[in-house]
Amino acid sequence: MDLLDRLRDAIGEKYVLTGNDCAAYARDWTGKYEAQPMAVLRPASTAEVSAIMKIASDTGTPVVPIAGNTGLNGGAQAPDQLLLTLDRMTAIREIRPKARTAIVEAGVILSQMHDAADAEGLIFPLTFGARGSARIGGVLSTNAGGSNVLRYGNTRALTLGIEVVLPSGEVLDLMSELHKDNSGYDLRDLFIGAEGTLGIITAAVLKLAPKPRAYATAMVALPSLDEALVLLNRLQEVSGGAVEAFEYMPGFYIETHLEHVEGARPPFEQTHDINVMVEIGATSPRDATPGEDGTVPVVAMLQDTLMEMVEAGTVLDAVVAQNEAQRREMWERRERAAELSVVRRPLVITDVAVPLDKVATFLSEATARIAEIDAEAQDLTVAHLGDGNIHYVVWPGQDDPAHQDRIMEIVEDVVTELRGSFSAEHGVGLAKKPSMQRRKDATALKVMGQIKAALDPQDIMNPGKVLP
Amino acid sequence: MDLLDRLRDAIGEKYVLTGNDCAAYARDWTGKYEAQPMAVLRPASTAEVSAIMKIASDTGTPVVPIAGNTGLNGGAQAPDQLLLTLDRMTAIREIRPKARTAIVEAGVILSQMHDAADAEGLIFPLTFGARGSARIGGVLSTNAGGSNVLRYGNTRALTLGIEVVLPSGEVLDLMSELHKDNSGYDLRDLFIGAEGTLGIITAAVLKLAPKPRAYATAMVALPSLDEALVLLNRLQEVSGGAVEAFEYMPGFYIETHLEHVEGARPPFEQTHDINVMVEIGATSPRDATPGEDGTVPVVAMLQDTLMEMVEAGTVLDAVVAQNEAQRREMWERRERAAELSVVRRPLVITDVAVPLDKVATFLSEATARIAEIDAEAQDLTVAHLGDGNIHYVVWPGQDDPAHQDRIMEIVEDVVTELRGSFSAEHGVGLAKKPSMQRRKDATALKVMGQIKAALDPQDIMNPGKVLP
Repeated sequence: MDLLDRLRDAIGEKYVLTGNDCAAYARDWTGKYEAQPMAVLRPASTAEVSAIMKIASDTGTPVVPIAGNTGLNGGAQAPDQLLLTLDRMTAIREIRPKARTAIVEAGVILSQMHDAADAEGLIFPLTFGARGSARIGGVLSTNAGGSNVLRYGNTRALTLGIEVVLPSGEVLDLMSELHKDNSGYDLRDLFIGAEGTLGIITAAVLKLAPKPRAYATAMVALPSLDEALVLLNRLQEVSGGAVEAFEYMPGFYIETHLEHVEGARPPFEQTHDINVMVEIGATSPRDATPGEDGTVPVVAMLQDTLMEMVEAGTVLDAVVAQNEAQRREMWERRERAAELSVVRRPLVITDVAVPLDKVATFLSEATARIAEIDAEAQDLTVAHLGDGNIHYVVWPGQDDPAHQDRIMEIVEDVVTELRGSFSAEHGVGLAKKPSMQRRKDATALKVMGQIKAALDPQDIMNPGKVLP
Repeated sequence: MDLLDRLRDAIGEKYVLTGNDCAAYARDWTGKYEAQPMAVLRPASTAEVSAIMKIASDTGTPVVPIAGNTGLNGGAQAPDQLLLTLDRMTAIREIRPKARTAIVEAGVILSQMHDAADAEGLIFPLTFGARGSARIGGVLSTNAGGSNVLRYGNTRALTLGIEVVLPSGEVLDLMSELHKDNSGYDLRDLFIGAEGTLGIITAAVLKLAPKPRAYATAMVALPSLDEALVLLNRLQEVSGGAVEAFEYMPGFYIETHLEHVEGARPPFEQTHDINVMVEIGATSPRDATPGEDGTVPVVAMLQDTLMEMVEAGTVLDAVVAQNEAQRREMWERRERAAELSVVRRPLVITDVAVPLDKVATFLSEATARIAEIDAEAQDLTVAHLGDGNIHYVVWPGQDDPAHQDRIMEIVEDVVTELRGSFSAEHGVGLAKKPSMQRRKDATALKVMGQIKAALDPQDIMNPGKVLP
């Protein structure tokens, strides 16, 4: 019996898509990666995923897992391969408020996870612009970060357990609900962030956190990025480590936002080069309960701290959100980043991280060196300043792949000099493979290759991704 | 040239110990594990560690890394093998207060790390009783936990980067200072917690945290462990998640402490079955700065909360430390646990974790079932109640290894029924290998074996440990 027939038997005819039915899955949202899969498979259970992998390993057929298709690096491209989507595995199996855990299938959409936690007065903290379409499986396979890693950590830090279907079809049950478990090697964190090259994550135990009762959110203009770090440490101190977001937006980002988003308004009367959006979350009633005069303590705390620094001249200007609408407006500005980056083409998307105190050096160095080879090049930058993660998107002056790669190399040079990473939170996929080859420690690449060969000897799990 | 001569050439004659010179390294502190190594090697640098491993892999000689020798599971036993100690690699290379990172060699003693951070007004949060002798390398190789995982996480969560010498002698440089780095597989977390079976960790980049300006510490007597969880969640809420320790000590533990520690005093006038030591750390000046009447806000907060609960009858009694001496006394009581566990022999040491809301069930079930086979058996229990980690030490009524193993099996049965772990924070070493065989998911064991075989094909890195 031929491969597709075996797959139809395993998961049902109507869930094996071929030809034009694959269209919706054949192209990523950036439009950069396009490829026709042999078929799109839509299993409904871990057992069906396992059955698919047994057939795939029998026949040595490559399988590429896809989640929300919101990735930026082509990690889910499946040219003439089997594309496996978990879009039918969307059950939130259990939420345990007392233990603050959620047990979910990997097809759950991130915003659905947010809603489910919210219904229990809790939060699943991980969030980013694409939350409306990104799925938990994709979040896990890329160890996604986002805007509040600063307080809650990245996906790894928010995951207690996972269930993985191995290339052989065997099911690896790591669905731990424990905060401490040192029984052998940390397999969980190996599969998290492996971008589907070692196995398919089908379910997870996620950590929930108490829902802040109030937020204090502000836009702040600063004289320098060093002063921004001083502000961050100061706010961490006064808030007892409750800073959730600390997002850098240069003047040109603000301009671009104003230009391309209807109804957008500037954050300040004057324009400034260095703009930061800061948010503090208060879980404690004494920080969140309004006083007689109606002021919320955590908001007052932020306001007072900013006032002092304005007087001291270390802050140039500051606007504190006075209501949820104003807060939303501040977040909307920041979360347009991905959309704004594609208003011009070609573009060189980078996602780098450097030590916290090296962000300014990176930006000045990279921009100066790129100007030397391309006077018209312009960068659209946003940064998670609190964790050193910079999304440095370059719009080159000329449309030439070789030129774009030279720009990427310049960025990598600076990152390497600062002991940073060329891949902070978007993962490697296809886009970053040349960088892996050029920049990753050779011994590390060798060890990764040994692990890949040991766990996927036939090289059928998302082959050709991540590892050069 | 014979093996020892080659080693002497590599690291210097006086740093290759043999015969009686090995005595200090031949026995673990519990006295349970004793074995004469072929030789003890004391390299001074990563290069020397690498040279040793090259010789070891040339000759197929097993190498066992040892750190502070404070482990409980025989993970550093090296019968007729090479025992490699990092006790000469104790440099704190750099502390970067602004980035809140420390770059250290793996031989640094934990308490030295504490002092170095303290000198910068910061803390390295990880702490436990053996901090005066435990070394960073051992802490990393067991992914040590301790008393404030609740707030700061375990060793993995406090580590940004590591340097590893592989079985081949190659040096794997993962010395990242980054908070986000998704460039390929998570090798760091694979070597952390591998107990030296995949490589030797020689250096690390550690996270530092702001030093609390004030602590509020109390002993609390409660009617039940469920009420204890209610207290924990309540304190997390009012403190905004600043609870650092929540340590359970049953009545019998208090008794045993009074009996064996000179000058020990009871926490309360009456004795209680359920005693908890709680500590809240305040980093914010507004929580830590004494008011006109001299009361420290965070202490008042704890006092008021406990008062309310005493009045509500959900807390039976409470004593809040009024000064550092009283705080130290509370910590001393808790940190005697390891010493107290060995005042009687034989003993069955267990280190289990269960979901937060299952601790009471575990204790009643385990104790009842053990009583059925051993009426004289007694347990000395302490638990990190905030993370579900229970140190349940049993003093059996009869000195018979088979009987002790039956007790271990009963504990494991209960743990398995509650979806807990038989190994929470002490690691596996030799002691927990039977448990790994009996209780660990078979597929997980298989994958671990594949990784071990891929990274250490000659099986020379701490062979015979961790994996059955």
